[in-house]
Amino acid sequence: MADTKTQFEALRAHATQTGYLLSSAALLEWDQQTKLPSAAGPYRSDQITYLAKLIHERETDPQLGQWLNELSESAKMSTEDPASDRATTVRELKRKYDRLVKVPSDLVQAIARACSTGQQIWVEARKANDFSVFRAALIEIINLKQQQADAIGFDHCRYDALLDEYEPGAVSSEVTDVFEALRAELVPLLEQLKGGADQVDSSVIHRDYPIDAQKEFVKNASAKIGFDYNRGRLDVTYHPFCTEIGPDDCRITTRYNEAFFNSAFFGTLHEAGHGMYEQGLRSEWYSLPPGQYCSLGIHESQSRLWENLVGRSEAFWQHFFPLAQSCFPDALNDVTRSQFHRAINEITPSLIRVEADEVTYNLHIIIRFELERSLIEGDLDVADLPSAWNQKYQQALGITPPDDASGVLQDVHWSAGLIGYFPTYSLGNLYASQFFDAASEQLGDLKPSFAEGDFGPLKDWLHQNVYQSGKCLSPRNLCLKVTGDELSHEPLIQHLKSKIDRIYGLPT
Amino acid sequence: MADTKTQFEALRAHATQTGYLLSSAALLEWDQQTKLPSAAGPYRSDQITYLAKLIHERETDPQLGQWLNELSESAKMSTEDPASDRATTVRELKRKYDRLVKVPSDLVQAIARACSTGQQIWVEARKANDFSVFRAALIEIINLKQQQADAIGFDHCRYDALLDEYEPGAVSSEVTDVFEALRAELVPLLEQLKGGADQVDSSVIHRDYPIDAQKEFVKNASAKIGFDYNRGRLDVTYHPFCTEIGPDDCRITTRYNEAFFNSAFFGTLHEAGHGMYEQGLRSEWYSLPPGQYCSLGIHESQSRLWENLVGRSEAFWQHFFPLAQSCFPDALNDVTRSQFHRAINEITPSLIRVEADEVTYNLHIIIRFELERSLIEGDLDVADLPSAWNQKYQQALGITPPDDASGVLQDVHWSAGLIGYFPTYSLGNLYASQFFDAASEQLGDLKPSFAEGDFGPLKDWLHQNVYQSGKCLSPRNLCLKVTGDELSHEPLIQHLKSKIDRIYGLPT
Repeated sequence: MADTKTQFEALRAHATQTGYLLSSAALLEWDQQTKLPSAAGPYRSDQITYLAKLIHERETDPQLGQWLNELSESAKMSTEDPASDRATTVRELKRKYDRLVKVPSDLVQAIARACSTGQQIWVEARKANDFSVFRAALIEIINLKQQQADAIGFDHCRYDALLDEYEPGAVSSEVTDVFEALRAELVPLLEQLKGGADQVDSSVIHRDYPIDAQKEFVKNASAKIGFDYNRGRLDVTYHPFCTEIGPDDCRITTRYNEAFFNSAFFGTLHEAGHGMYEQGLRSEWYSLPPGQYCSLGIHESQSRLWENLVGRSEAFWQHFFPLAQSCFPDALNDVTRSQFHRAINEITPSLIRVEADEVTYNLHIIIRFELERSLIEGDLDVADLPSAWNQKYQQALGITPPDDASGVLQDVHWSAGLIGYFPTYSLGNLYASQFFDAASEQLGDLKPSFAEGDFGPLKDWLHQNVYQSGKCLSPRNLCLKVTGDELSHEPLIQHLKSKIDRIYGLPT
Repeated sequence: MADTKTQFEALRAHATQTGYLLSSAALLEWDQQTKLPSAAGPYRSDQITYLAKLIHERETDPQLGQWLNELSESAKMSTEDPASDRATTVRELKRKYDRLVKVPSDLVQAIARACSTGQQIWVEARKANDFSVFRAALIEIINLKQQQADAIGFDHCRYDALLDEYEPGAVSSEVTDVFEALRAELVPLLEQLKGGADQVDSSVIHRDYPIDAQKEFVKNASAKIGFDYNRGRLDVTYHPFCTEIGPDDCRITTRYNEAFFNSAFFGTLHEAGHGMYEQGLRSEWYSLPPGQYCSLGIHESQSRLWENLVGRSEAFWQHFFPLAQSCFPDALNDVTRSQFHRAINEITPSLIRVEADEVTYNLHIIIRFELERSLIEGDLDVADLPSAWNQKYQQALGITPPDDASGVLQDVHWSAGLIGYFPTYSLGNLYASQFFDAASEQLGDLKPSFAEGDFGPLKDWLHQNVYQSGKCLSPRNLCLKVTGDELSHEPLIQHLKSKIDRIYGLPT
């Protein structure tokens, strides 16, 4: 038996090599979304599938399992600080390995097939605007994901086994508690808002914003807040995303709408927030847990923080509005900063999650969380999903989707087997506010620096407190360490209330 | 022992999977040249090196060797037509396998290291304009390539073992014969040309050609001759190239010079010629020999054919010159088609290979071929290379490089261990003329169709006669089948003479 040090180095080399395949697959996928010739899709799928097979073989390699077992039981490891890089590497690789080997390869392949087919059927169903086209495929996916959850195992409820993949350590009962508390505040807030003294006129952000000017403006703004273009790129895709292809190669994407300012601008700030997190992870641990993001919820907190807490703030536009006016003179010369700031902060119930504002967005997520949990727990039949969806929209947002395409068929996630993923979006919003409050408490009021176009203090704080931590702390422990508290709905609600009060003229 | 059919299917699956890695590595390399963020180079090298290792392991997999041995000795194979897809697959994979396993892995790694270092040192030496900086690195590379040649083995001379990698079946004595014949014609031709009645004024192609207009013009022209942009892309790089990332994903690159028309235009036609060959290979045999290019010489014939025999012809510009005038009105409105055609066909001795004209280009190649052969055979010391280089330039072109940077240090090939590669450039020119003559003989005069912008007949002929053949025939047998003759210098010389006569007003 090799000594612990040699084993650890072997483990590290193994994961580093797997990382070469993962990052190569990431490039194949980035290229597919941004550059692929129109006829090249089928072969690209074959390439990605083959790399996924090699990656899965490496990640479930029995030799890896043996190293991980011996290392985690070794005397040396028992005395390590659990947040150390070594302990984190062993613990998190073992966590992943154990999850993976529990799922029989027949089931892995069945899920891959069902989701690949499922996404194609979902596209057809959405085009046909008919949930019944997708029903049988979704029944199969839910059934397979239930089997996957059972194979992985869980303490309290089946859904937790799936949620844990995206938000390690999260359990649905706690998520439910914080989401309930959030909804209890959000729904009356929306009601109140309708009676506000100052309603928002958002027409100015629907004027003509030439795309070349937008490109320059969003690139400059994302660089200004701290996205490093020597270590990244910005490209155009239909669905914006952020991916990393190496420790110094983080790529974000956006989409431009000539008739709507928000789409590219806030989309880019959002993805740049994700990208700054990736760029701030420790390069020397690239493709190993100490150099990987903590959880999807924490990842989303970084995008939402820059998109909403910074990018939709008054102070941010003290710096950027004059620049926007010189970039878009036709659209903005007769607009005041206050008008513009109000317009980008309009809050109004709508049907489509990805177009939702800061307040209603979380209601879209809570609905999806409740529905997918019920599907997995067997409390809701797929056949009843559309009516359950519409009922929840009526209750939470006061609107009922007129059809399936703008209702239950709008998101790709379920067709792709991404169940347990939705709640991380709202967890991200919650963490973002709580982190932002902690930063403000520790650094003092950040508004004056934003107004001067200086985002360094906030970014440095995030670097120190969030980025560099990687997976060394769980999301819960990171939150405790950074903010001194358990995750709570209150910072987000306070942020939203105070913004709404100012913008909609509600009595405080 | 598995039956022959099962073994063949296993072989095919093995090579197809290796193809997924090869094409993924090709994407990593394409991206490195075109899109990579500036700081991302080191990790990209690690990714490529790792994939190269996996590919080498697969290509030297003993299981593959066993299948190949059993299949090539099987009764079924002994009765197959050697040009059949099955026989070609087994023969060519075995050829490659046997070459690879003959070279010890220590030597493979030593060459990889020496060439990686060698290229960096070459860059420094070129910057310092001092061959002595590069000398020791080149001595090591030559020494290792000699060892490689010895490990592979050869019938007549060591250089053949290296040449065979790029031009299967070629032997240097035959290449020497055809090159000698070519030089014997080219050198006096150049002399004669100086006394021609009509010297060329090429100033019109050095006017201002706005880059956006160039981009549109070269893309349209390359599409018009037959490069399929649904199955390919055109991007910008410093060193233009063509690569394939899948059966429906061929990517070419070019570079734009605002003050010089030829650079992007003929560079793109050249790469599009390569690309059309790749696009015309049989997709169902992608990553297997029947669906792979015949040799580098044949590949180059396809680029040179479109660049020179088509793209520099008068008939081509009957169609394209009016379009060029409307694309570049400031540069071309006061220029006649004849002036323009003469300018793009200027012939003049120069120092730099990649900027050379159709006539002198081959002299640059012959010089390199003779020098690298002498280095490998041990007839020339690396220390004497610069003076040998300069002497040959004086003899063949009548000019002596004033320094190493514009002389012996100008090409990357030797520093990258690409020895045996240079002759394929001129073999390409020779094949191009011989193929073009055969096409013209079989299809009738092609000029009228070019003048109407119709390149379909020529492309279809190449598709049928060259593209679809893959590696089923050797370069020599392909030439025999398509043209009825062994490779000869005469078609190229005839083409050049007749062009020079018309343009420079030489007595015919």
